Amino acid sequence: MRVFALTGGIGGAKLALGLAKVLAPDEVAFVVNTGDDFEHLGFHVSPDVDTLVYTLAGEANIETGWGRQDESWQFMRAAEQFGLPTWFRLGDRDLALHIYRRQRLAEGATLTEVTRETCRRLGVAQPVLPMSNDPVRTRVLTPDGSLAFQHYFVRDRCRPTVTGFEFDGIEDASINPELSALLGAGASSDRPGAIVICPSNPFVSVDPILAVPGMRDMLRSAGAPIIAVSPIVGGQAIKGPTAKMMRELDIPASATAVARHYRDLITGFVLDECDASREAEVADLGLATAVTRTVMSSLDDRIALARDVLAFAGA
Amino acid sequence: MRVFALTGGIGGAKLALGLAKVLAPDEVAFVVNTGDDFEHLGFHVSPDVDTLVYTLAGEANIETGWGRQDESWQFMRAAEQFGLPTWFRLGDRDLALHIYRRQRLAEGATLTEVTRETCRRLGVAQPVLPMSNDPVRTRVLTPDGSLAFQHYFVRDRCRPTVTGFEFDGIEDASINPELSALLGAGASSDRPGAIVICPSNPFVSVDPILAVPGMRDMLRSAGAPIIAVSPIVGGQAIKGPTAKMMRELDIPASATAVARHYRDLITGFVLDECDASREAEVADLGLATAVTRTVMSSLDDRIALARDVLAFAGA
Repeated sequence: MRVFALTGGIGGAKLALGLAKVLAPDEVAFVVNTGDDFEHLGFHVSPDVDTLVYTLAGEANIETGWGRQDESWQFMRAAEQFGLPTWFRLGDRDLALHIYRRQRLAEGATLTEVTRETCRRLGVAQPVLPMSNDPVRTRVLTPDGSLAFQHYFVRDRCRPTVTGFEFDGIEDASINPELSALLGAGASSDRPGAIVICPSNPFVSVDPILAVPGMRDMLRSAGAPIIAVSPIVGGQAIKGPTAKMMRELDIPASATAVARHYRDLITGFVLDECDASREAEVADLGLATAVTRTVMSSLDDRIALARDVLAFAGA
Repeated sequence: MRVFALTGGIGGAKLALGLAKVLAPDEVAFVVNTGDDFEHLGFHVSPDVDTLVYTLAGEANIETGWGRQDESWQFMRAAEQFGLPTWFRLGDRDLALHIYRRQRLAEGATLTEVTRETCRRLGVAQPVLPMSNDPVRTRVLTPDGSLAFQHYFVRDRCRPTVTGFEFDGIEDASINPELSALLGAGASSDRPGAIVICPSNPFVSVDPILAVPGMRDMLRSAGAPIIAVSPIVGGQAIKGPTAKMMRELDIPASATAVARHYRDLITGFVLDECDASREAEVADLGLATAVTRTVMSSLDDRIALARDVLAFAGA
């Protein structure tokens, strides 16, 4: 029984690491958002895939919250001299992955194949599956027009007001065939033990995954509990613009609103203990609920939450 | 009156720096071998152009003899982990130039345009003109088949025995139009003051330049003295495989043999003082001769040789 975890950036990767610590590599698979991928300096940058791979490899940069640990910035300083854009920072060590990926994509490899190879090179045994091998590019709609996601997120530091999102290319994107083989109808693996939506941004990390044509049906048809963990704790996002986006979209920045966002897909919802008072609201949506500590500061926190989520899914 | 200096790698760049120190930027232009350019890790690597540009910019790495100063190797160490080839080393700082060049070439810029831009970015005011914007690739012929130049030179450390050379693509290569504009018939500049063949490897640094269709005629027609400086001193090359190649090609490793190699093009030849005894041999080839110190250890040596060559050309 394999657990499938849908994940985006840092928050998702924390729970993913917990799952990776408590499950055997063949008992879990990660489905990763690629809506914030983009082309930069001729490289295919896949921030959520890389955050997860580096996290699972023990190579994530804790100081920055992105990129690779023990990083140096000699390239970036020299790049400034050449007038190259510097708003998105690629470290000297991180460049190895990007140069490798570009080489392999140019040779015709899929993003999934390249990701598997980078996982092997970095010692990651779990399947890390981009949601699709086809390009999907999240655009953030604002009153002044739309922005490519990384322009919104990194260059403009989430300052613009959000009015909505578009996922360019989504209509033509196919579900990662390796994911279909593991999870879809006639999948080679057993019925999944659970599908977990990690505490990632619902709008820009999870929704692109769910918007790949056929994804929702495939998840629903799997016959497993589908559990979302709230990325909103006490009305705030632990990290990132989730709460700000909700306010701008006229959605209350609450765990309940996140549960409502996912309600037609999920069967259960995990709230943080500080949101225990909202459990009844969520249950009223027809969802099973669990309340636990969801804030993951330490590795032990990640492992504890993974165990709690798996226990909840098994219940 | 502009001086045109034909140059390849390190030895040529030394004299080029001397010329750059004694002439105003509009009194000199450098014509650079691109026969040892190659594609590596998806980058266009142009070793002779870069050696010259970094040298003129005061950015050359003295310790390695190639690449950029104050270099670090974080990328290379991470690249090993991804199984990327590591026989050709690109430093973290040097990557900025390569990523910039790839971007600009992908946008349709010529190698000459990119080189002008990198010069401007690094504060190099002199024209640095690749011999051609078209791809020319030197192959080294050996008893076991032919090798791409960088495989011979860097990967195999010049160990294979040389039986000859081929310049792939040379038939279809056009002279750099900016060079023709400065030097060719109807050139916008005055008649050149001199054409100087720097002390570079005759076979793999200078011959590719001279083999571009029309190059020899253009140089001869310029009506200027054409002066070669011997890269062979006392039967040895200061650096690189010139002497080894000559022995393998059954050519005596002597300054005289270099003069003979160029005799149908040049009008004068500069020998090192330790080869003074060969001056008569060279004069017997019908060439004007000058004997001076050609070994360039210090910046003063570079400047002194530049002055000597210019004085000889003016005589």
